[in-house]
Amino acid sequence: MHTFTYHSPTKIIFGQDTAPNLIPELHNAKISRVLVLTGGKSVYASGLHGAVADLLNQAGIRHETVSGVLPNPRLSKVREGVAAAKAIQAQAILPIGGGSVFDSAKAVAVGAASEYDIWDFMTRKHTIAAALPVYGILTLSGTSSEVNNTAVISNEATQEKFALAHELLIPRAAVVDPALQYSVPLNQVCYSGVDALSHVLEAYFESLDTSEVILEHCEAYAKTIIRCLRGLPGARENYDVRSELAFCSIYAHSGWASVGRARRGDFTSHRIGHALGGIFDVPHGVTLGILMPNWMRYVYDRGLCRDTFTRFATHIMGIKEAPDNDFALAGAQAFKDFVRSLGMPVSMREVGVKETDIPALAENASRSLPFGCVIPMDPEHIAGVLRQAL
Amino acid sequence: MHTFTYHSPTKIIFGQDTAPNLIPELHNAKISRVLVLTGGKSVYASGLHGAVADLLNQAGIRHETVSGVLPNPRLSKVREGVAAAKAIQAQAILPIGGGSVFDSAKAVAVGAASEYDIWDFMTRKHTIAAALPVYGILTLSGTSSEVNNTAVISNEATQEKFALAHELLIPRAAVVDPALQYSVPLNQVCYSGVDALSHVLEAYFESLDTSEVILEHCEAYAKTIIRCLRGLPGARENYDVRSELAFCSIYAHSGWASVGRARRGDFTSHRIGHALGGIFDVPHGVTLGILMPNWMRYVYDRGLCRDTFTRFATHIMGIKEAPDNDFALAGAQAFKDFVRSLGMPVSMREVGVKETDIPALAENASRSLPFGCVIPMDPEHIAGVLRQAL
Repeated sequence: MHTFTYHSPTKIIFGQDTAPNLIPELHNAKISRVLVLTGGKSVYASGLHGAVADLLNQAGIRHETVSGVLPNPRLSKVREGVAAAKAIQAQAILPIGGGSVFDSAKAVAVGAASEYDIWDFMTRKHTIAAALPVYGILTLSGTSSEVNNTAVISNEATQEKFALAHELLIPRAAVVDPALQYSVPLNQVCYSGVDALSHVLEAYFESLDTSEVILEHCEAYAKTIIRCLRGLPGARENYDVRSELAFCSIYAHSGWASVGRARRGDFTSHRIGHALGGIFDVPHGVTLGILMPNWMRYVYDRGLCRDTFTRFATHIMGIKEAPDNDFALAGAQAFKDFVRSLGMPVSMREVGVKETDIPALAENASRSLPFGCVIPMDPEHIAGVLRQAL
Repeated sequence: MHTFTYHSPTKIIFGQDTAPNLIPELHNAKISRVLVLTGGKSVYASGLHGAVADLLNQAGIRHETVSGVLPNPRLSKVREGVAAAKAIQAQAILPIGGGSVFDSAKAVAVGAASEYDIWDFMTRKHTIAAALPVYGILTLSGTSSEVNNTAVISNEATQEKFALAHELLIPRAAVVDPALQYSVPLNQVCYSGVDALSHVLEAYFESLDTSEVILEHCEAYAKTIIRCLRGLPGARENYDVRSELAFCSIYAHSGWASVGRARRGDFTSHRIGHALGGIFDVPHGVTLGILMPNWMRYVYDRGLCRDTFTRFATHIMGIKEAPDNDFALAGAQAFKDFVRSLGMPVSMREVGVKETDIPALAENASRSLPFGCVIPMDPEHIAGVLRQAL
């Protein structure tokens, strides 16, 4: 087992109708002014926003709301949030939404505690020194943003998608109520589930060079996510299925999947996926469903990672027989088939990307080099993975 | 999956030679005066205490040391620690040791932040309102005290063993260096490993009424601990084996094994074990090795928990065939055989307890009622489990 530091201080408040349990957390931290951040209309239509507003009012906590955070959250909305937070001298940011809303809340939390423009932190012109605390209510599981230290924001002006990461961004408390997710369209649930799965697998595929118990806990999570997504069409309001998905999604990208490993995971599919999401506005989970199986095939064709892919095939995908006993190849194929079985695209062409778009995508992804450890990426490899994914 | 709150804010610093990484944590918290707490001579003989003292000196952190914490840690030593902490106006407590030293550090942390005697908090005469932060270095894994909110202290005057539990007691950071544990006598490593295993199983045996992924992560941990303890005689300085034991021990009693469950676990064996430890000074892990298999048999004989014990037998103990297909009974027997195979006692007689001691033990254990959920305990059941364990 490799040396690691694991720090996951978020208080997880998990279960149906647990949103009211967030109020004592704000009280204990002596917070009396919060900026609420939301996505689209669903949190209003469902009554959730109104219920939270009532709870805040009853608790004497002043609040304003900025809504309209989109998937692949935008810099402009973050700037709007920062201005609103400063206007009310917010002491905390309270996202109600999925990963995009949590990511935006973290960026707002940094911007509201600084005089610099938030994009300067994303381009590493400035280092984060302070951030308001984030207390959130999750309405779609997948990114682990409810517990991790990361925010990914798109700059629509430059078509760049960059990550912000700092310990100060880790939410203090997060309500994860699986029943709040019943109303999310099933295709979005699948995108988010594939996102969570890919977080486990980015770590798992790094190598088998860790202890057996680490491999086993990753396998338990990956298997569970796959089982739940497969059963989802008949289990939309099955609390246990939605709970397992929500539970595994919390830990998939909390750092937990990469404890005891030499590195924090490969993350090539994520980085190239950010380019695809940034330029073509493809949902994050869809980019991963396209890129990860194709990255596997690209790696396989170069004779690498065979033992890991073989264990993936047998321990996670449950493959018992493979043509020519080539379990590694069968594993990559089974992953692609699984994504397709969810009704998700498995090639870039299906989302409107043409071969002539590859240079621009490769150039964009190359801006966040270095990344990749199974194959340390360079512009040529990036273009190669993109061609494989065409 | 049942509603739960999980909060494990300790920063885990895991790996060989990671003790120096604790210093930046103290610095970041602006701590300049600490009370160091240790057990016996081993931390001096190994040079660890000297190395930590050097690190603290180099960092300009004033420190005093109180040593001599014993297994089944004593109230008198806690009071000595409180006095020493107050004398130097300590801002933090720094245990270097195993669970007993960490438990004592937590109690000192409470006592040093209050005018009341520490025992008044244990008897619930007073409620904890403040505690100094604890930053520790673990030298023997088993209790999860490095990450949980609990301290168990024995009052040698009254022969009582009580627990103190509060969120403020959770260590801020803990160094877990598996190589520091090589020098611990193997019988003590076994006691501590059985302690960690029992923490997982107290939760697991509660019932199967939770999600599959929760059962699977508990099974991964329990199986790993059993595998490592079985292999220990030939693997004393095998870093991977010791790492897996240390890793599973962190999470066994962090609250992680009981997320998603209706309750926090059964813990009958622990409560009765505290009586056994309090009166006869039997090491905590030994009391569990005696009581847990016998509690299982007592439960089995009343027709309860059969499905859980059956899954335990097949999924954790790896039993493939059982006489009369009675896997539940085979599981209880296999657990007892496993404890015996470690050279540990499996009956109270082996540690000098006689039948005539049972009333006093039962009376002592009854003082901490209510406990037990598989069988809600009462004085009669407590005496019954003790007779079974004779």
